[in-house]
Amino acid sequence: MDLAHRIAARGSELLFFAVTPPRDTVTQERAQEIAEVTQKRLAALGLDGLVLYDIDDESDRNPEERPFPFLPTIDPAAFGTEHLRDWSTPVVVYRAVRKYAERDLAAWLEEQDAARVLTVFVGASSHQRQPSTTLARAQDLWARTRPDVVLGGVAIPERHTQRVDEHLRLIAKQEAGCSFFVTQVVYDVNAAKDLVSDYHAECTARGLDPVPIVFTFSVCGSLRTLEFLAWLGVAVPRWIQNDLRHADDTLQASYEHSLAAARELIAYCRHLGVPFGINVESVSIRRAEIDASVELARQIGQELHREPLLGTSPQTPPISDIMSF
Amino acid sequence: MDLAHRIAARGSELLFFAVTPPRDTVTQERAQEIAEVTQKRLAALGLDGLVLYDIDDESDRNPEERPFPFLPTIDPAAFGTEHLRDWSTPVVVYRAVRKYAERDLAAWLEEQDAARVLTVFVGASSHQRQPSTTLARAQDLWARTRPDVVLGGVAIPERHTQRVDEHLRLIAKQEAGCSFFVTQVVYDVNAAKDLVSDYHAECTARGLDPVPIVFTFSVCGSLRTLEFLAWLGVAVPRWIQNDLRHADDTLQASYEHSLAAARELIAYCRHLGVPFGINVESVSIRRAEIDASVELARQIGQELHREPLLGTSPQTPPISDIMSF
Repeated sequence: MDLAHRIAARGSELLFFAVTPPRDTVTQERAQEIAEVTQKRLAALGLDGLVLYDIDDESDRNPEERPFPFLPTIDPAAFGTEHLRDWSTPVVVYRAVRKYAERDLAAWLEEQDAARVLTVFVGASSHQRQPSTTLARAQDLWARTRPDVVLGGVAIPERHTQRVDEHLRLIAKQEAGCSFFVTQVVYDVNAAKDLVSDYHAECTARGLDPVPIVFTFSVCGSLRTLEFLAWLGVAVPRWIQNDLRHADDTLQASYEHSLAAARELIAYCRHLGVPFGINVESVSIRRAEIDASVELARQIGQELHREPLLGTSPQTPPISDIMSF
Repeated sequence: MDLAHRIAARGSELLFFAVTPPRDTVTQERAQEIAEVTQKRLAALGLDGLVLYDIDDESDRNPEERPFPFLPTIDPAAFGTEHLRDWSTPVVVYRAVRKYAERDLAAWLEEQDAARVLTVFVGASSHQRQPSTTLARAQDLWARTRPDVVLGGVAIPERHTQRVDEHLRLIAKQEAGCSFFVTQVVYDVNAAKDLVSDYHAECTARGLDPVPIVFTFSVCGSLRTLEFLAWLGVAVPRWIQNDLRHADDTLQASYEHSLAAARELIAYCRHLGVPFGINVESVSIRRAEIDASVELARQIGQELHREPLLGTSPQTPPISDIMSF
């Protein structure tokens, strides 16, 4: 069964990998090289889908200095269409909807092959400047034009810790057409469990079927990346921050934390009976961090109860056989 | 090695059980019966120490209605001396210091056998009415009279979540003479890990040896007890609250949560190299909750790396062989 149908059927134990497209300053040839290396690196993971992030300059949502400069990237939709032609699974294209005029978003939706492209709409944060298109308008557009394209939404456990209403936001998004959710990077497992738990209870109370929640994990190879996570609003528990600060090998320590967090959430979602997926994101350009991300996805993938996939190899070569760019 | 020496040597993997003395309205005979049943029930656990709580009416620290009425109990020191004469291990007598005049506290300290009695001083919370004796005065009294009696302090992970200074309070108490700490009941493992982690980092930075931190766990057999935990200021993560609310068997569910939390903290303290202990408290009068507490202590005790104990049986009889009162 393909990804769109599995999500519609509230399928579970899905595996995703997320990448950021190359910077928009690279040549077409370089973008193609990067796409090919990425496909080669990820081919053996047997992913259910490849997530393509749409990077937005969020510097207006946080007055603190951004630890890494904002570098515009190629449009993920264009990167998918033009450079990932050989990629075998569906892609999940993020749309930071405020960046697009309604007619451009509508035109893009019209062109999509629903068997091959899913999309996640990301709304502007409340602190951001006037958006071109609001999330509500984008959802409305989707419903009027291409409701067959599987639509996802973002879930932010940290917001649940602060306002205790993220589960209600998820249900509102679900009512607006979302049939899956992808979280921000998870370091605070308790916050994620609180959200899933409240979401599950609310679905039960309303007689709704919960939709798959895809939890995102990433490795953190340096203290600068840790600062960046904090800047982005990711809650990293103090004990994990301390551990990463004092670890001989920050990357290895964060790999272990992410794996432990994923295992805990997997066990918890299975216990509750909430369908879920795991998304490992690699947004670094450092070889060691990319390798660790791929290894994390491979390890988690082995532990998921997955449907046999057609056309992908059950064997995963060791990391050292996978080329880097 | 006895408990006082093990604590002085920064020993680890200590096992405690905590009880509340009987209500002060019971007869001497009834108090003796309760003491004997308690001793019989706990004998096979091979405890390092028995903790006797000093119950204080804390209703002035929380304007909400107390879910259970406050019922004064026998003084724990008197209960230990008069009724637990046959108990084989040291006892850890709590002293809610604000309840006692300085001269009474001094007189009590003078009488103690340091091989048999350890004490934990509990200060008044900032919201409480003018205390007879402040924590600082009590510590000073201890230092001047019986510094050989091993002194402990309380550790409150929830306070660390709010103020991020509980590790500094622990170090200040350590400098005032405390050589171990006992936490409030732990349901929020992250808060406890944050506290241990910051405490460990601060000790390392100051060149101090960390002292044993004893984590307290309890089972929660009803939603009323859950309310009471909240009233007492115990942070129960939302997902655990939801799980307890929806569980077919609240007691069994809370047993599993407490065991999982204890295992996680045991693994974490071993990883950090911070000496620790586990304290299981039983403050309920319901037979099922008492049995579950004893079983929790037995299970955790089996998983600790413990020194062989003299004079206690390595065999633990099944719960059903232990009489109830």
